[in-house]
Amino acid sequence: MAETAPLDVTGWTCPAPLRDHPRVVMGHGGGGALSAELVQHLFLPEFCGAALAQLGDSAALTLGGVRLAFSTDSYVVRPLFFPGGCIGDLAVNGTVNDLAMSGAEPAYLSCGFILEEGVDLSVVSRVARAMGEAARAAGVEVVTGDTKVVESGHGDGVYINTAGIGVIPAGVDLRAQRVVPGDVVIVSGEIGLHGVAIMSVREGLEFGVDVESDCAPLAGLVRSMLAVTPDLHVLRDPTRGGLAAALNEIATASGTGVLIHEARVPVPPSVANACSILGLDPFYVANEGKLVAFVPREHADAVLDAMRAHPLGRAATVIGEAVEAHPGMVVARTRLGGTRVVDLPIGEQLPRIC
Amino acid sequence: MAETAPLDVTGWTCPAPLRDHPRVVMGHGGGGALSAELVQHLFLPEFCGAALAQLGDSAALTLGGVRLAFSTDSYVVRPLFFPGGCIGDLAVNGTVNDLAMSGAEPAYLSCGFILEEGVDLSVVSRVARAMGEAARAAGVEVVTGDTKVVESGHGDGVYINTAGIGVIPAGVDLRAQRVVPGDVVIVSGEIGLHGVAIMSVREGLEFGVDVESDCAPLAGLVRSMLAVTPDLHVLRDPTRGGLAAALNEIATASGTGVLIHEARVPVPPSVANACSILGLDPFYVANEGKLVAFVPREHADAVLDAMRAHPLGRAATVIGEAVEAHPGMVVARTRLGGTRVVDLPIGEQLPRIC
Repeated sequence: MAETAPLDVTGWTCPAPLRDHPRVVMGHGGGGALSAELVQHLFLPEFCGAALAQLGDSAALTLGGVRLAFSTDSYVVRPLFFPGGCIGDLAVNGTVNDLAMSGAEPAYLSCGFILEEGVDLSVVSRVARAMGEAARAAGVEVVTGDTKVVESGHGDGVYINTAGIGVIPAGVDLRAQRVVPGDVVIVSGEIGLHGVAIMSVREGLEFGVDVESDCAPLAGLVRSMLAVTPDLHVLRDPTRGGLAAALNEIATASGTGVLIHEARVPVPPSVANACSILGLDPFYVANEGKLVAFVPREHADAVLDAMRAHPLGRAATVIGEAVEAHPGMVVARTRLGGTRVVDLPIGEQLPRIC
Repeated sequence: MAETAPLDVTGWTCPAPLRDHPRVVMGHGGGGALSAELVQHLFLPEFCGAALAQLGDSAALTLGGVRLAFSTDSYVVRPLFFPGGCIGDLAVNGTVNDLAMSGAEPAYLSCGFILEEGVDLSVVSRVARAMGEAARAAGVEVVTGDTKVVESGHGDGVYINTAGIGVIPAGVDLRAQRVVPGDVVIVSGEIGLHGVAIMSVREGLEFGVDVESDCAPLAGLVRSMLAVTPDLHVLRDPTRGGLAAALNEIATASGTGVLIHEARVPVPPSVANACSILGLDPFYVANEGKLVAFVPREHADAVLDAMRAHPLGRAATVIGEAVEAHPGMVVARTRLGGTRVVDLPIGEQLPRIC
């Protein structure tokens, strides 16, 4: 197949090593190559363990004979309230989705607030209300929490950390390492909405687009996919670093190549327009209510049907496949028939989108 | 008994209601009355659930038939490095201890970093190393993590959130609600060391004392206590708000009175001196390697012996008892034979000690 023809990658280099950055830069939080370096070179050597080393969206554990998923994310999004959501529902859905990507049924969340002295309690109250509503919608319960306060001028009003636990059903084993050439790559809907919604209201960037964040809990969609077969290979929600980062993480961890067809990736016109104004690539823009799935070819049609029958998967579509060629790399077939490498982003196009 | 004589509480008033504070103040993070108001009036109504409403140091859950403890804390201590520890081992031991207070065997931790742009990676590295060492010492594994970066001037170098899960052994049910009059109150050692260690190096307060934080993992000590009997009633680690806050939380939740004997509470001379210089009450100063236990009277001697046989409980001692008088209140018998109400602190004597 033409898709698997060798690709010239001359000039493509590995991300800069950590030692070139003696200080923390914004990109270390961007979910791209700099984040990966920090984890690989600084955190993993200290916390070395099999579960962490899998580097999935959540850790798969066995505790008391039960298979659990355990995940955490901190949320520092600016502004706190944005079209389609706020930091509160983002903090619930983000962690619910990380659990769902391991096939787990999300059950319980913890919640740690870091509040800035001087913030209106009405702001905290609105955020808490959004968290409560999002938790009920996702079928999870916030069961333990903590609040710290830092002096005015530190923090940014509200930072939230959530951690979550859920039970992984028997027979479900979703890991990038299970991807094999021939797997079909499915995305659950239109990409780029969350990132563009944040950018549209970010100080200094305001522009008039009618885009809302896609922030939503994906556990129900995953449940409907697993009802077709527990043998999905891997799921990932393309948040920071967008579709490009998610596909690169899977390519790296699986050692297979990933080939996608640009024309098949659903980019809504509003996102395409905003990206062209800002000089961004929609493949790198964050999503908060989408997933990408690598599915064995024999199950792909049935899984796609199941996704399209779910409200959050109506626009699900096949965008590519895992290939033997260019192992560990993501390559896009362009609309003009050429190919281009889809790199892991270095940092994040716009920091603090989640 | 003289200890249970009625106490005149004229002039003692409930903490101010939340509506008197339209904005977040430092005290909302102090673990005292303001923190309790925030939880009771703002968070609980949104997150209402049985597990959260218990308001223990961790939530006790059943998941897949296994009884789990689940807990979280964020750490914003200043300075990041202090005599006896740093934010890294504090972030591990703090959450390990919250799990241990429910009798759980701590197993897995999550770790969320919020880093400030411009911080030396060597600082992050030292903190991560301290976390790794503390995790190994406590017998837990950091299995999942997240890193966010905020702009220079926001944050304070490093904030850390950890969440933890552990298994609660069969027959163990530690809750303040189980406390009954007659229970013996034991403290595991000298109080006030962590808070005084932080104060001694806090900008603007530096003073020369030879005090190190008592930061340590308490799961082993708890295990040795539970080996005597699973029927301890409640354990609490007196962190923010110190011994006073821990005892008040138990008194309030149990509806019993708590009577302590000031002369029996082990306050090391260095802590007493520092507190007298700063005008502080050692009962309100934070600890990070101590616990307070309410134990049925018939088990008290054996539990005390077991504690004293453990390196972290050598100075364990009985400081008081649960009483029928003054339900919900903590009263101290002073050295001069008088009594005084030990209030729940409003905020924290010195913010950001954990």
